[in-house]
Amino acid sequence: MSQKKFVAINYIQCNDDYRERFEQLFATRAHAIDRMPGFYEMHVLKPSDENGNYLIMSFWESEEHFKAWTNSPEFIEGHKRGFADIAKAKAEGKEPPMKSTFKTYTVIAN
Amino acid sequence: MSQKKFVAINYIQCNDDYRERFEQLFATRAHAIDRMPGFYEMHVLKPSDENGNYLIMSFWESEEHFKAWTNSPEFIEGHKRGFADIAKAKAEGKEPPMKSTFKTYTVIAN
Repeated sequence: MSQKKFVAINYIQCNDDYRERFEQLFATRAHAIDRMPGFYEMHVLKPSDENGNYLIMSFWESEEHFKAWTNSPEFIEGHKRGFADIAKAKAEGKEPPMKSTFKTYTVIAN
Repeated sequence: MSQKKFVAINYIQCNDDYRERFEQLFATRAHAIDRMPGFYEMHVLKPSDENGNYLIMSFWESEEHFKAWTNSPEFIEGHKRGFADIAKAKAEGKEPPMKSTFKTYTVIAN
């Protein structure tokens, strides 16, 4: 546990009509992130409050390992279907199916 | 991993002059929660953004196990110093040193 030093959380506000698809994307995720150096684990958290945000959390050895992921081909591979859904909505002049707010943290106790 | 089904997150907005004390409380925590049935692990996350919230996350086998903790003598024991700090501020007519917002989640993917 003590080596999990850096945490990235994506807070996702999902449109109601996209929730089922969103959950299915993670239930069948590409596991591209799992191959990255310095990656420990991830959790997808569904809010008990139906209006709440989903949380996508990933645990990393360091911020540098996390940044390497965001700049990697694996990042594109891992987000392919989600990015396609967003691009499709944009092409059709619709609102994006989800909005994300991104925050990072350091683990200071376990 | 697959048995970690329920997650509780306390989002803590800490006064600037309480941050050092807050971090020290968790660095020397009582580990009372660790004795609870159905408890897996906890993480204390410090925000990279200095105005951000701290996150206190705990992973549980089920919501029932988590609720048993919030109603246990161990809960009082584990929060003794923090609760005392809040009571002291109140007695002195000051603002509380921290404010918390509490949310729960289900793990839907790892």
